[in-house]
Order: sequence, then structure tokens, then C-alpha cells
Amino acid sequence: MSGSSVRQSIRRERVIQSLADIAPDFARYLIEFPFGDIYSRPDLDLKSREIAVVAALTAPGNAAPQLKVHIHGALNVGCTRREVVEVIMQMAVYVGFPAALNGMFAAKEVFKERDQSGKD
Amino acid sequence: MSGSSVRQSIRRERVIQSLADIAPDFARYLIEFPFGDIYSRPDLDLKSREIAVVAALTAPGNAAPQLKVHIHGALNVGCTRREVVEVIMQMAVYVGFPAALNGMFAAKEVFKERDQSGKD
Amino acid sequence: MSGSSVRQSIRRERVIQSLADIAPDFARYLIEFPFGDIYSRPDLDLKSREIAVVAALTAPGNAAPQLKVHIHGALNVGCTRREVVEVIMQMAVYVGFPAALNGMFAAKEVFKERDQSGKD
Amino acid sequence: MSGSSVRQSIRRERVIQSLADIAPDFARYLIEFPFGDIYSRPDLDLKSREIAVVAALTAPGNAAPQLKVHIHGALNVGCTRREVVEVIMQMAVYVGFPAALNGMFAAKEVFKERDQSGKD
Amino acid sequence: MSGSSVRQSIRRERVIQSLADIAPDFARYLIEFPFGDIYSRPDLDLKSREIAVVAALTAPGNAAPQLKVHIHGALNVGCTRREVVEVIMQMAVYVGFPAALNGMFAAKEVFKERDQSGKD
Amino acid sequence: MSGSSVRQSIRRERVIQSLADIAPDFARYLIEFPFGDIYSRPDLDLKSREIAVVAALTAPGNAAPQLKVHIHGALNVGCTRREVVEVIMQMAVYVGFPAALNGMFAAKEVFKERDQSGKD
Repeated sequence: MSGSSVRQSIRRERVIQSLADIAPDFARYLIEFPFGDIYSRPDLDLKSREIAVVAALTAPGNAAPQLKVHIHGALNVGCTRREVVEVIMQMAVYVGFPAALNGMFAAKEVFKERDQSGKD
Repeated sequence: MSGSSVRQSIRRERVIQSLADIAPDFARYLIEFPFGDIYSRPDLDLKSREIAVVAALTAPGNAAPQLKVHIHGALNVGCTRREVVEVIMQMAVYVGFPAALNGMFAAKEVFKERDQSGKD
Repeated sequence: MSGSSVRQSIRRERVIQSLADIAPDFARYLIEFPFGDIYSRPDLDLKSREIAVVAALTAPGNAAPQLKVHIHGALNVGCTRREVVEVIMQMAVYVGFPAALNGMFAAKEVFKERDQSGKD
Repeated sequence: MSGSSVRQSIRRERVIQSLADIAPDFARYLIEFPFGDIYSRPDLDLKSREIAVVAALTAPGNAAPQLKVHIHGALNVGCTRREVVEVIMQMAVYVGFPAALNGMFAAKEVFKERDQSGKD
Repeated sequence: MSGSSVRQSIRRERVIQSLADIAPDFARYLIEFPFGDIYSRPDLDLKSREIAVVAALTAPGNAAPQLKVHIHGALNVGCTRREVVEVIMQMAVYVGFPAALNGMFAAKEVFKERDQSGKD
Repeated sequence: MSGSSVRQSIRRERVIQSLADIAPDFARYLIEFPFGDIYSRPDLDLKSREIAVVAALTAPGNAAPQLKVHIHGALNVGCTRREVVEVIMQMAVYVGFPAALNGMFAAKEVFKERDQSGKD
């Protein structure tokens, strides 16, 4: 299991635990459905999948926690920081500058976190 | 100039003309800003840019005309139909099934249009 | 199998067919996930589930096709027309008058369709 | 009563009638609340109110029918066509080009309708 | 006056006071319109009304403060915690997992607050 | 250069700096496009432009930071506090009470900040 997969597993584990007392089945759906079914499908590479998700989560302009998870995800599967910045910048055209600016600040925080733990 | 570029030029020309009588400057911004500045930036390939835009336009669940333009765009710059379908399918996880289903119907119409004109 | 279940089955069948040529797996997810897992859970009655969905689909103000499906659904599982109207009316407070007004027009069309086929 | 007020009254009358059979109380709220309470408040002129509403209805990018009503409204209370175009154009910055473009097309239709009936 | 009504009154009182210096009339509308007119209508029970509102406020995925008020409201008028969890879980299908997950965390906080004050 | 322009310049400078390490070009677009092109157009006065932007940023109900910037902006170009309050209040009709209430709290914070620095 790669370092990236280990980190992903830890994150999932934490979500499952936080839901354990109120909605254990939801935790199971959350894990099984998105990760089990969608991400493992063969016809689109993981990098493109993460680009799509970063774009979709930048669009509402206020989904910072989930967006940060997927900026980490995108970097973990091979996107460069510049590519992440470009995806978010492009959203300015489609959903406006405030949402893209918020996305940029989310990216900035993620990059800082990764600098501190020595990751790309 | 490639066939794809020619078609893009024709589409832009039509948008410029439709805005000519009420907002000619807006037509100019629309063309100059997104296409001139963003799409031509070097750090992200065109295919990834179109994947991001297809994702962002699937997310609201009701931007069918623009989404169709960018599904054409994605196919024109090298995405396969299967990849487009996967991007839209993945959105179900992040923005719900109704929006993803609407995106799928938009894709279906685009594929039909392209079948009729012999394009991939 | 009740008349309502038969109609639901027919509708699902149609969605599966319309996706068969471009995204057969998505059709399967669409059916399996929402209906298989969520609707059959014991802790909330079907009528309350449909009330929640009618509310959620009124909120964006532009999801008319899906909203109509679920107004039918709500009436099929025991909501009265007046209850449907009240749910939509209440949304005016939370998402504004235009969205609620659009929801009301969707309800009006559904009621007409049901009048024509002699349903409550 | 001015020509503009007469037209407004006719429009309201039509909304009340269309809701009469399913939600007569909602028709009453719709009329009483927005028009009775909000529009008649002294601290902001009608022109500024309509500018705010045109902006808010351009933002979702898909509220064309209501947006058209309020573009008419803005022109009826003294906005010029150029001012309406500028309000919509400005939205590109805040909510993206697709929504602003849809707003522009709504304005174009309104201007055409008014040309045909000889209005500014 | 029941304990629940007393708490509701206290909450309303606090909203009125917080708006008193900048928008006293808005405070009045806020209270009069939603509570006076809508909630007291006879054709839909309070429990169903709160289910609709919890669904509508889960949908945008980021309305945590208002959502928490209405999760309290739903529990105050007779919903069980399990029913609230089910309503929010169902939203995953219609508005995606991130919004439903945020709703779940809002519910978790509410349940904790109620545990601390000995409420169901 | 007026006091208001100086403050605007300082704010822009800060945004440029915060983006300097991750997306310097985006900072440039952000400044050049909205301020250079749109705000300086002759056909709509600055006060009306700010009213439109306050309305658009109140609508999503969760864009507090940007909304606060533009409430300052509106007051800087001649809107009264009462006019700002009226614009936000009017949004209740179009996007619902929760979003308008959030807008009102953003206004309240801005007014307090300005009281502390002796501004209108």
C-alpha cells in the first residue's frame, strides 16, 4: 500500500468514526459508494477524476473543507500544484471571481500544510 | 487551422453577432477573457481544462446549453466519449443524482449530434 | 404489486433504457443506490421521505422534471394535494418566492396529469 | 394610475388567477408580501430596487422568466436599456460568464418585446 | 405555553433584538411572515413542515446555523433523532454527499447540545 | 486621490500580495478585469453598480467576506446605510429569509467597523 493510499485510508477511517454514533450506515454508503464504485472505474484516470472534483467543489464557492480534501487528493494522484491552481483559476470564467478566489485560498492552505510535512 | 479550431471560431463568431446589438463590449470580454487569457495558459493541458469545465457545468444541474458546448469542446480536444460520461457520472457523488442525470442527457444529445455529422 | 409500484417500475425501466447506450452502469447505480438502499430504510416513512425530496427539489427553483416525478411520488405514497402545496408554499420562506412559484406551477401540471388519468 | 402601474396590475392579476385553483393563499402572500411591504418602503428608490432584483435574478443563471419580468420592471421605473445591460454584464465578474450571458439573452428578448409594442 | 414554545419565543426574541438597531422592520417581517402565516396553516402538520425545512436547508450544504435551528425545531415538534438523520441521509441522493455530510455534522452538534440539557 | 480610492487601493494591494506566491497572474486578472474594465464603464453610476453587487452577493446566502467588501464599497460610493439595509431586505423575497438574514448580519458587522473608524 502506497503512502498516499495509507493517508486516504486514515482519512476515511476518521469519517467513519465521526459518524459512528449517529449514522453508521451513512458512513458505510459514503465510503462504499464513491470510493468503491466510482473511483475504481477503468475509463478515466484518477488524475482527471480529481481535476473534475476540484472544479465541481470550487464552483459553489463555499465548500472549503471538501475542496481541501480533494486538492490533497489531486496532488496525491499526480497533479502538480500549478495544475491545481490552473483548474481553480479557470473556474473564475464559469462561476465568477469570488468563488475562484475562495478556491485559491483553500489551495494556499493545502500547499502550506504539505510544505510543513515535506510533501509535493 | 484545424477543423476543431474552425468550428470554435464559427461558434464564437455567432455569439459575438448575437450580442452585437445590445452588448458588443460584453461579446468582446467574453471572447478575450476566457479564451485569450485562460485557455492559452501553458500549465494545464486543454483536455484537463475541458474536464474541469464539464464538471463545473454539470454541477448546477441546469446549465445544459453551456454544458453541451463544453462536451463538444472536450471531445474536440481529445477526450473520449467514455471519459466525458465518467466525468459526469462522478458528479453524482458530489452534487447528487438529478444534476448528474441531466448532464448525462446533455451528453447523449451531443453524441447524437456528432454521430449525425460523422464526428467522434 | 400495487398500481403505484407498477408505475414506479415503469418509470425506472424507462430511465434505464434511456441511459442504456451511453451509461448503463450509471443507470444501475441510479436505481440501486437511491431506491435499493435509501428508500427502503425503516426509520422514516415513505410519505416523510417524499416530503423531504419535494422540498429539496423545490429549493433550487429550476429542477422541474425531477420535482414533478417526486410530486407524483408523494401523492402515490399518501400525501394529499393540499400537503404537497403546503410543502412548496413553505419553501418561499427559505428559498424565496420565485423558486416556490416555479414549484407551484410544477405541482399544477402534475395535478392536471393526474386529473386526466383519474388519480388522486 | 400610470400605464406602467396598469401593466403591473394586469401581470399580478394573471398570477393570482393561475394559482387560484391550487394555492389561492399563496397568490395572496405573493402579492401582499413583496409588493405591499417591500416595494413601498421609502428608503430606497424603485429604480435601485429593480437594479438589485435584476442582479439577484441574473446570478443563478437560469431564472429567465422572473428575470424578464424584472427587466421589464426596471425599464418601467426609469432604468435605461444600457443600464440594464451594464447590471447584467457586471454579474459576469461575480457569478461567471454563462449566467451573465443567459441574462443578456433574457434582456435581448425583453428589448424585442418592447420594440414591438413601441416602449422604451 | 409548552417548554418548546417558550424556547422558540426566546429564540425569536433574540433575533428581533439583534436586528433592532439596523433593521427593526425586517425583524418584524421575519417573525410575522414565516411564523404567523405559514407555520400556523392547517393543511400540513408541524412535523412534516420541519422535515421539509431540514431537507431544504441541508440541500445548499452550507447553511449550518439555520439548519441547526430547524433540527432543534424538528425534534421539538416530535421527530425522532433517527428521523432527522434519515432525512439528511436521503439528501445525499439529491444534492450529493458533501452537503449531506455537512448536514450530518450539524445534526451531531445539535444532538450533543440536547444531550447536555437533557432533551430528547 | 480620494480617501475612498486610497482604501480601495490598499485592499487590492493586499489581495495581490496574498496571491503572489501561488497565482500571481490570477491576482492580475482579478484586478484588471473587474476594476479596469467593468467598474469604469460610463453607462451605469458606481452607486448602482455596488447595489447590484450587494444584491448578487446576498443571494447565495454564504458569501459573507465578499459581501462585506461590497457593503463597504457601496457606502464608499454614496449609498446610505439605510439603502444597504433595504437592498438586503428586498432579497428575502427573491432568495429567502435565511440568506437575507445572513446578509443583514454582514451589514451589521460592517456598520460596526465603520463606527469604530468614524466613517458613515
